[in-house]
Amino acid sequence: METQRSNGPPPETHEAIMDATCRALCEHGYANLTMQRISDELDKSKSLLHYHYDSKEELLVSFLEYHLDEFATRLSLDEYDSAADALAFTVDALFPDPDDSNDFEVTMLEMGMQAPYNDAFREQLQENNARLKDLFTRIFEDGIERGEFEDIDPERAAEHVLILLDGVRGRSVVLGSDEPNEVGRDAIREFIQAITVGDEAQ
Amino acid sequence: METQRSNGPPPETHEAIMDATCRALCEHGYANLTMQRISDELDKSKSLLHYHYDSKEELLVSFLEYHLDEFATRLSLDEYDSAADALAFTVDALFPDPDDSNDFEVTMLEMGMQAPYNDAFREQLQENNARLKDLFTRIFEDGIERGEFEDIDPERAAEHVLILLDGVRGRSVVLGSDEPNEVGRDAIREFIQAITVGDEAQ
Repeated sequence: METQRSNGPPPETHEAIMDATCRALCEHGYANLTMQRISDELDKSKSLLHYHYDSKEELLVSFLEYHLDEFATRLSLDEYDSAADALAFTVDALFPDPDDSNDFEVTMLEMGMQAPYNDAFREQLQENNARLKDLFTRIFEDGIERGEFEDIDPERAAEHVLILLDGVRGRSVVLGSDEPNEVGRDAIREFIQAITVGDEAQ
Repeated sequence: METQRSNGPPPETHEAIMDATCRALCEHGYANLTMQRISDELDKSKSLLHYHYDSKEELLVSFLEYHLDEFATRLSLDEYDSAADALAFTVDALFPDPDDSNDFEVTMLEMGMQAPYNDAFREQLQENNARLKDLFTRIFEDGIERGEFEDIDPERAAEHVLILLDGVRGRSVVLGSDEPNEVGRDAIREFIQAITVGDEAQ
């Protein structure tokens, strides 16, 4: 049982639990999430959750990790002919869809706001951010190597894009408006234009 | 008493209540804030708070409004010789100070995350945002008129700067790192440079 716990549940069970957590989060919000509500979505006994996770916090850290892995799997950079294409695809994948309900965005931001009070959340969110930042950094490095982009600092460029993405996400949720999304997309496009070789900055 | 309520408490009492709310928020965090804890900071009976505010929510909406007014008073744009100076000053005033404790930033973001669930918070936060955006828009308009800035869309430029500011704020709090602050300051500087007449964009 010790091994079972430290390795987590078997893959199918894990996926079912993560999907149930996602549904329960979107339905009830972070503040009202309980193990019971996750069980209800899972249609299995609450004891199954407690067998695999010591606490709601442990389950949610696992959920943050799962969300990252799922996202990383969707992004395979080998398929792109240019760094600009890889960048456009990655930004698109991360941009909130203004037509979707933003329930999921809201709960992810709520978990983010727990970081100052919860070391396990903070560490997992730092890990998620490090992976995303590394992805953008590699795209910028690749673009510089291919001669697509000017000789900029790839890590700072990655941070710049992530600040814009997080700014859009936060403002969309708090203000309930589409404008940050529109302006943010243009801002990222202009930033990329400005560092593209042969393209004139706006 | 009806008039008293709708006009709020007299100025000195109001200021004392707002200061107490600020201290209680920073000390206990949004989730653990109670009227009792605000009273403790105020060193007055809890009935004083209940006399002036029907609920904790009403008090917090008033706090958000007070915070905006206090900030707006600090910014008097007439004092500046150029739009660039006014912009630099305003950005500086809004940028989180990395040397300060970020307790206050955290609680403001936590209240922001209540917006999807709380119409009164959302409306006040929309109002705060509209005032800030209007301030930036007027600076950009002024800069265009004076011939300092290119003929850009001043409202979109204002939104661009606010996305960067909110992105920095969110990332600093969630990740507990100074890097967003550094990169975000440069990003705003580069954005202003890019729209400044006669300055070459990076």
